[in-house]
Amino acid sequence: MSGASAGLRPPDAAALRDAVARSLAEDRVLEDVTTQATVPPDQSGRGSLLVKRDGVLCGLDAAREVFRQLGGTIAIEARAADGDAVACGQVVATRAGPLSTLLSGERVALNFLQRLSGIATLTRAFVERAAEGGTARITDTRKTTPGLRALERYAVRAGGGHNHRDTLADLVLIKDNHLAAAAARGVALPELRREVRERAPHTHRIEVEAPDVETALLAIEAGADIVMLDNMTVAAMREAVEAAAGRAVLEASGGVNLESVRKIAATGVDLISVGALTHSAPALDISLEVEPA
Amino acid sequence: MSGASAGLRPPDAAALRDAVARSLAEDRVLEDVTTQATVPPDQSGRGSLLVKRDGVLCGLDAAREVFRQLGGTIAIEARAADGDAVACGQVVATRAGPLSTLLSGERVALNFLQRLSGIATLTRAFVERAAEGGTARITDTRKTTPGLRALERYAVRAGGGHNHRDTLADLVLIKDNHLAAAAARGVALPELRREVRERAPHTHRIEVEAPDVETALLAIEAGADIVMLDNMTVAAMREAVEAAAGRAVLEASGGVNLESVRKIAATGVDLISVGALTHSAPALDISLEVEPA
Amino acid sequence: MSGASAGLRPPDAAALRDAVARSLAEDRVLEDVTTQATVPPDQSGRGSLLVKRDGVLCGLDAAREVFRQLGGTIAIEARAADGDAVACGQVVATRAGPLSTLLSGERVALNFLQRLSGIATLTRAFVERAAEGGTARITDTRKTTPGLRALERYAVRAGGGHNHRDTLADLVLIKDNHLAAAAARGVALPELRREVRERAPHTHRIEVEAPDVETALLAIEAGADIVMLDNMTVAAMREAVEAAAGRAVLEASGGVNLESVRKIAATGVDLISVGALTHSAPALDISLEVEPA
Amino acid sequence: MSGASAGLRPPDAAALRDAVARSLAEDRVLEDVTTQATVPPDQSGRGSLLVKRDGVLCGLDAAREVFRQLGGTIAIEARAADGDAVACGQVVATRAGPLSTLLSGERVALNFLQRLSGIATLTRAFVERAAEGGTARITDTRKTTPGLRALERYAVRAGGGHNHRDTLADLVLIKDNHLAAAAARGVALPELRREVRERAPHTHRIEVEAPDVETALLAIEAGADIVMLDNMTVAAMREAVEAAAGRAVLEASGGVNLESVRKIAATGVDLISVGALTHSAPALDISLEVEPA
Amino acid sequence: MSGASAGLRPPDAAALRDAVARSLAEDRVLEDVTTQATVPPDQSGRGSLLVKRDGVLCGLDAAREVFRQLGGTIAIEARAADGDAVACGQVVATRAGPLSTLLSGERVALNFLQRLSGIATLTRAFVERAAEGGTARITDTRKTTPGLRALERYAVRAGGGHNHRDTLADLVLIKDNHLAAAAARGVALPELRREVRERAPHTHRIEVEAPDVETALLAIEAGADIVMLDNMTVAAMREAVEAAAGRAVLEASGGVNLESVRKIAATGVDLISVGALTHSAPALDISLEVEPA
Amino acid sequence: MSGASAGLRPPDAAALRDAVARSLAEDRVLEDVTTQATVPPDQSGRGSLLVKRDGVLCGLDAAREVFRQLGGTIAIEARAADGDAVACGQVVATRAGPLSTLLSGERVALNFLQRLSGIATLTRAFVERAAEGGTARITDTRKTTPGLRALERYAVRAGGGHNHRDTLADLVLIKDNHLAAAAARGVALPELRREVRERAPHTHRIEVEAPDVETALLAIEAGADIVMLDNMTVAAMREAVEAAAGRAVLEASGGVNLESVRKIAATGVDLISVGALTHSAPALDISLEVEPA
Repeated sequence: MSGASAGLRPPDAAALRDAVARSLAEDRVLEDVTTQATVPPDQSGRGSLLVKRDGVLCGLDAAREVFRQLGGTIAIEARAADGDAVACGQVVATRAGPLSTLLSGERVALNFLQRLSGIATLTRAFVERAAEGGTARITDTRKTTPGLRALERYAVRAGGGHNHRDTLADLVLIKDNHLAAAAARGVALPELRREVRERAPHTHRIEVEAPDVETALLAIEAGADIVMLDNMTVAAMREAVEAAAGRAVLEASGGVNLESVRKIAATGVDLISVGALTHSAPALDISLEVEPA
Repeated sequence: MSGASAGLRPPDAAALRDAVARSLAEDRVLEDVTTQATVPPDQSGRGSLLVKRDGVLCGLDAAREVFRQLGGTIAIEARAADGDAVACGQVVATRAGPLSTLLSGERVALNFLQRLSGIATLTRAFVERAAEGGTARITDTRKTTPGLRALERYAVRAGGGHNHRDTLADLVLIKDNHLAAAAARGVALPELRREVRERAPHTHRIEVEAPDVETALLAIEAGADIVMLDNMTVAAMREAVEAAAGRAVLEASGGVNLESVRKIAATGVDLISVGALTHSAPALDISLEVEPA
Repeated sequence: MSGASAGLRPPDAAALRDAVARSLAEDRVLEDVTTQATVPPDQSGRGSLLVKRDGVLCGLDAAREVFRQLGGTIAIEARAADGDAVACGQVVATRAGPLSTLLSGERVALNFLQRLSGIATLTRAFVERAAEGGTARITDTRKTTPGLRALERYAVRAGGGHNHRDTLADLVLIKDNHLAAAAARGVALPELRREVRERAPHTHRIEVEAPDVETALLAIEAGADIVMLDNMTVAAMREAVEAAAGRAVLEASGGVNLESVRKIAATGVDLISVGALTHSAPALDISLEVEPA
Repeated sequence: MSGASAGLRPPDAAALRDAVARSLAEDRVLEDVTTQATVPPDQSGRGSLLVKRDGVLCGLDAAREVFRQLGGTIAIEARAADGDAVACGQVVATRAGPLSTLLSGERVALNFLQRLSGIATLTRAFVERAAEGGTARITDTRKTTPGLRALERYAVRAGGGHNHRDTLADLVLIKDNHLAAAAARGVALPELRREVRERAPHTHRIEVEAPDVETALLAIEAGADIVMLDNMTVAAMREAVEAAAGRAVLEASGGVNLESVRKIAATGVDLISVGALTHSAPALDISLEVEPA
Repeated sequence: MSGASAGLRPPDAAALRDAVARSLAEDRVLEDVTTQATVPPDQSGRGSLLVKRDGVLCGLDAAREVFRQLGGTIAIEARAADGDAVACGQVVATRAGPLSTLLSGERVALNFLQRLSGIATLTRAFVERAAEGGTARITDTRKTTPGLRALERYAVRAGGGHNHRDTLADLVLIKDNHLAAAAARGVALPELRREVRERAPHTHRIEVEAPDVETALLAIEAGADIVMLDNMTVAAMREAVEAAAGRAVLEASGGVNLESVRKIAATGVDLISVGALTHSAPALDISLEVEPA
Repeated sequence: MSGASAGLRPPDAAALRDAVARSLAEDRVLEDVTTQATVPPDQSGRGSLLVKRDGVLCGLDAAREVFRQLGGTIAIEARAADGDAVACGQVVATRAGPLSTLLSGERVALNFLQRLSGIATLTRAFVERAAEGGTARITDTRKTTPGLRALERYAVRAGGGHNHRDTLADLVLIKDNHLAAAAARGVALPELRREVRERAPHTHRIEVEAPDVETALLAIEAGADIVMLDNMTVAAMREAVEAAAGRAVLEASGGVNLESVRKIAATGVDLISVGALTHSAPALDISLEVEPA
């Protein structure tokens, strides 16, 4: 996407293309009865993408892809890039071309822009608050919208966050349920860690979820690469950081919000994962103002 | 979906199946390295779907479809139905079967449940507030998540709302941009309405967006079936309702929130459309508590 | 398609592309053993699309799409447009390029052209006869060829006809079977109309099928937007038109043929729907005459 | 399909399934607003498939597949099989189950039945006339409806016809255009035949199109397995049959109609191919009469 | 593919495109974490395709297609063509462009090149040995890699071999199992041949598998177009060739290897089919040497 | 697959299903003209899967899936499991059911069985030789057949091997080309390692390819999790093992064959990766012996 030149890694092009195609089909954009009845094919126009609340922009290339799939004759001029902070009233892009195409594709383009910008905006808020407390990275989770994971992970990066594992195939993450499953067959953490290292691919890191400092340390001693401090108090997290002494990457998780994130970062953890980035970010209000030629 | 017996129309089965398949592939659920390394194929378990905030439940059949696609040996027992009000702490369903399947499919199932329940919950809030003011229906808009429109429209119905048009092919909705396009070629509303009736399919209704009472009345006189009162004050809406005198369906739109909706309903409009239902509903917190056998 | 500039709305580009791709695969055009064995890759040629019976042309862009998908090096020059009346012996387009591509793609291109032109030709005949009697529009029905609805609806437009509803989602059309279903649970037409207005989307028009004038009037009084006069005599239709007095759109349906259509139009109905346009139009005879270079 | 037990080879199951799925999607059968608004989910009914003109039945399994894909709870009882001669007024199958499913799926099921039965009916007419003249087989051509070739070839078999080549990959068929291409590079028929036998797969038969008796004999002497007597007079065909003396399979092609087919068969040719079987057969009129329970 | 100009027929473009797309997705090439972490998007480079063992090159266009699908900005310069003999140490193509694309696509491109070149190399060895003994063609079989048949058949052609039937639909090949099935219902070869000619499409040739000379002659007398001499001794094959006296195409099959092929060819058979060409050819060692700019 | 109960993890069910479906379509199994012409639909039979060379069995479930997709009425009885050593002459499974289905599906089923068993057999040979020298795991590489990676990785497991990374997204593997790219912009290994840890996901392990002991140690000191000893001599590998002293996982790669593998294992490396397992394993000879009932 547009911000890529500034070091922002774009989403998988195929994921973008498929999501846009699905969305255009879902809205039956090529059968827009209103535009067909009111706008002659040869009337042209110009649209301004207007941001209506302060936030972080994300999704310009999704919008671009919408118009590319609709026939490619819309000229788009970007005045901001994905990842840029934008202000209420700012025009972030203009488009010119056949008016009917502009009008038919408007909603789908905005649906992408508003959602992705909403995620980038919320992420940026967490990143900035966390930075007041420490150096911890803000990361997403797998709590993403079905079908949009690649794009939402991109929006998190646009907001300054980092990505956690993409899929179940990417990292061994032993959660409470897996520990309980092992315990039910008489296997405790240190032994489980050995089993896992034996059975899991040698190519993968191992993370263990720990509900308390004691389990966290047990996990570190068992050789976990990453330990998730799950729903711990700030005090407990601080204790875990000290006890770990750099032997594992520490991730704070659970109950993180814009109030608590600064203090959590101040404990010295490496990562703070926030499900709300993708499951509860409100859309950023953006509209397309069209002027017929 | 589960609530269908109570008159709740389920989403298109194909849309449900495709969304779930896409989501399982996206999470590479069949390659869950953690579960493969920690849970033997023959270990069984039991999971309880636990609601962690008050709200309206939606998405049980999406969850069911997740486990059906993962092999179908999970026995699911529902204790609540889509559309039911549920309370923090309530177990809404239990599942029993191979523990590895329960654990691998958990996140995808929850991603559907949390999002759809979030939408149903917000919709219900609007519906209840509106009911205090009048008889207006709460409707959704086309501001839905790319790829999930059919499911999100279902969630709106589960929350007691109604659906607006599904796609651009379903209704002629002449917005400000279409009016401006016509004006640019010298065509005013009454004439445009005639043109549209001539060109648009005889099978379709016609709605006109009006920024003020005067335009609303012009639209009604031109024969619009529905008139959208766009971003009008409550006073203006009341005036429009009186002047319309039942000659058209009236829809309030723009700037509707949980504070304003009661008063808007009290104006006597027929419909109140709310984009936030689908673009900004926070997820409802639901978790799967697993017990190994 | 080619006639679009003259106001003829083209079919959905995706539907066209998919139908052509399916057809090329179905004919295994890329594995044409005959052409591979007889025509060297570098031999070029020229083909003339020759109409062999008077009719209305339709499908030039389907043919164009065939050669685009086969590699795009065929130069096509159209000498007529979709929707044009063409005469036996007329060359409507020429193509030049690799002879092997011309020969391999010929049959698929002609299969589209012949079928769509056949529909456009039959539609034009109905339109012209109807025009002798009155101003009624000729419309198609949902009796289309499986998989080709979008293209066949386009052919109807090319012939001067109008489209009826595209899908079951587009219009509430209460037929005799629906009336019988309601009757079986004790619900008569006026009450059914109220139920439907309550349950069906506010975005949709409602049409009612009436077997006689009495039912037609009942439907109009119940507020139907459109009434289908089903298999009525010309006299009954004339009576219905008079009694309706413009309160609803009236559609004649059933038993319409080239003999009866003029009289039916003369009754003053608004629409005349004809299933035969798409289910029984014979192909228009068109061939490709090739000259090797 | 149903007639298979009597030796009628069914169409490719995948082709059938895909065509039905495409057709259900095309009609948006799962979003039937009318049935949703008028028929409760628990109302059941019974439908009779009624033939309204004499003909040959074909497509029962396509209809069966429609209801299988819609959920499988419709009980179907066939009273006739594909390939059977049926008479106006005859009930060929009954269905019982949820009324809403019966009504929503009706049109798609009928669209298959009517088209395939139309083809089988026309084929049977040709087969019977030809049988009065001789033993020649009636065959189809590649002039089929885009996307329905496998089903239409089945309908030809149901009517008693035989199939010609399925795709361009199945037979070397050297037509006038291929002969002209070869001539343009100085290669005449006998030499072309040698080239082709060298280049074409050893697995394939070779057919040559001949416009006159002389070319037909040249082709036979050059070793053609099959010779197409293209647009020859009946006298010329008789002469070719005598001269060929059984050295090649002879196919009559071009200008065959129900008047001429008996005489053509009487010439002693082996095959008579008829494009009209698939490109111009009118639909057979069949309807579904529904009775609510 | 590249050798096409020299008379080598390329594989079906759609088969090539699909196989490459599937392979890029399978390797998640767009999510190459290593290259994303080590190579800036604007760094360019140059790669040389280096052959590391003598052999026959095949697959240049598969490699080209890999980079086309990855964005198309890689400039490829071929120094050899598919079907060319290449020597250890030879650079057969160079590529220049974004280094990240070169590195991410390398493995998929090589996987195609190595396999197809391996098949072409083994085929060439058989072709050359056979040529020492006689004029028999070397052909492949249907023992191909699932999903790659079209490409592997192309590699056989690149190696100088010929293709046997592509699919089960292309030739009637009556094997021992079919003969046994017929025998079990009391039908012997001559009668079976008549049955088959009656039931099989007139468009198809008929081949019969014969375990001994006697059966081979029986098959020829019954009118088989091709006879497969299955697992016969060289002496038996010679006897069959003499007895057949050109009345049928003779194919040697079974137990053919690089030692035996010369003698088999010397018997005078027309075809020698070799399953090992596609099921057991070792990959040709090829690597991509990259130089950053 | 069948061996799963014994701890052998089966391949992704979707990958299996898709590969089989693709293969059945590729062979046009439903249009088997030979079987249609020689075997009546109601004739039944029995087939024995006969191994014709010693080896390791793999692919029973692919064969099972073939017959499931062909209609599911074939009863299969397995007498051995995937991963079992099997001997020439051993019957590993029998099938009974419609003879026509058995014959039509035979080749596709065998193509899977022969290839996967070939890979399992070669893997077992490497595993057994390596075990004579040490405890190193034999692993595959990404040099797999396009489109079959999931199945081939399964075959490697069936042979007793382990899987290396599945895709480019699964592990950071810094190869010579990446090191060269970094060097070209002035970045050496220790700094590159830091950059990578910063940029790559925290969820991923990092492997570095080292051409000599010095680089290997540099990589270990820079914190690599895994070091690939690329094309080193046995002596150098031994030196690297000693110097590493357990600080990283060591992988031997390059030039490994059945002669050298024992000595390489004896050096004490942890992993030995062998591309030939998947790119050059000859098929295991297996046939289906059919008996008509």
